[in-house]
Amino acid sequence: MSDVTAETGEHQTHGYIGQKDDLLKRLRRAEGQVRGVHRMVEEDVYCIDILTQVSAATKALERVALALLDDHLRHCVSDAAAEGGAVAAEKLAEASAAIARLVR
Amino acid sequence: MSDVTAETGEHQTHGYIGQKDDLLKRLRRAEGQVRGVHRMVEEDVYCIDILTQVSAATKALERVALALLDDHLRHCVSDAAAEGGAVAAEKLAEASAAIARLVR
Amino acid sequence: MSDVTAETGEHQTHGYIGQKDDLLKRLRRAEGQVRGVHRMVEEDVYCIDILTQVSAATKALERVALALLDDHLRHCVSDAAAEGGAVAAEKLAEASAAIARLVR
Amino acid sequence: MSDVTAETGEHQTHGYIGQKDDLLKRLRRAEGQVRGVHRMVEEDVYCIDILTQVSAATKALERVALALLDDHLRHCVSDAAAEGGAVAAEKLAEASAAIARLVR
Repeated sequence: MSDVTAETGEHQTHGYIGQKDDLLKRLRRAEGQVRGVHRMVEEDVYCIDILTQVSAATKALERVALALLDDHLRHCVSDAAAEGGAVAAEKLAEASAAIARLVR
Repeated sequence: MSDVTAETGEHQTHGYIGQKDDLLKRLRRAEGQVRGVHRMVEEDVYCIDILTQVSAATKALERVALALLDDHLRHCVSDAAAEGGAVAAEKLAEASAAIARLVR
Repeated sequence: MSDVTAETGEHQTHGYIGQKDDLLKRLRRAEGQVRGVHRMVEEDVYCIDILTQVSAATKALERVALALLDDHLRHCVSDAAAEGGAVAAEKLAEASAAIARLVR
Repeated sequence: MSDVTAETGEHQTHGYIGQKDDLLKRLRRAEGQVRGVHRMVEEDVYCIDILTQVSAATKALERVALALLDDHLRHCVSDAAAEGGAVAAEKLAEASAAIARLVR
């Protein structure tokens, strides 16, 4: 069963699968927060209170991104690094580009 | 009609009302992007592609925040500054705190 | 003495003058941190420890930026807002652009 | 010569050594930018112009951080991943924590 790691019992297809439920829960919350911002604008809530909610939604998405990235490094990138060669170099360049997009 | 500014024709209650439709449109798009991330995680899409979508949603929310803040400065803060005194000082402190939360 | 505000006793030329010493002290510290990063790279210190120092320097500069911006809003922008007209609009647009650069 | 990689000819001790000169050059520039901010505050330059310079210095430091991180992933983390086990897990956790500090 080459698609199951000895260490973690997780399927290899994608690293984040092991924590999928947690990610989906966070994303549902982030969705609710963005919907909350929409409702606040519709109801003419005070700008500063809307900005607080926008910041909360942005931070929630950042945490999702960091969790995805952590898992990506632990699985896809680690596996590629263990094999080495061109695929490893490509995965690492891809991960660095994704990190740069997050940091901006 | 004291609640309509001569210059812009916008109602004063909250600065962002004049551009409410634009903000609501952006927020619907951001909501769609977050829902897209949720679907991508559910369908086990490749991590890096999900991260690209998360970055797009985060940037969309940042643009909403900057638009809200710009309007807040132009209306609430400017009006308070024109009156001066304790209310002006309070509005300015509140705006600075909101900016710090955005910058982090 | 029209260039001294009744409230704070600060000169109006630029808002940050009242807190100049504090800003200069923070900047000297940030300069020292960047020089520290330079020395760490030269001495082949472990990457992660260098990254911690880079983050500290970046955060120090962000705090300088937020202090400058807060003062700019309290003085230049408030004064312009109190006068109104084209100068006020220009100062506000300029402040919003500076905030957007900080947030990115 | 086990401390020289076949592929790049770089010493393994730390990943960034191969690009040390480039990093040191960037850091000298960042240092100059921070010193520039210091001088601008001293000479009472207009806030917005100082903020532009602070943003430039912050971005320069972010680029240094991304370059260090990219190299760290390519060398230290990849080597550890190839070996696997507890050291690999530790290096990955450490890298993720450093990324989170950069993103904030």
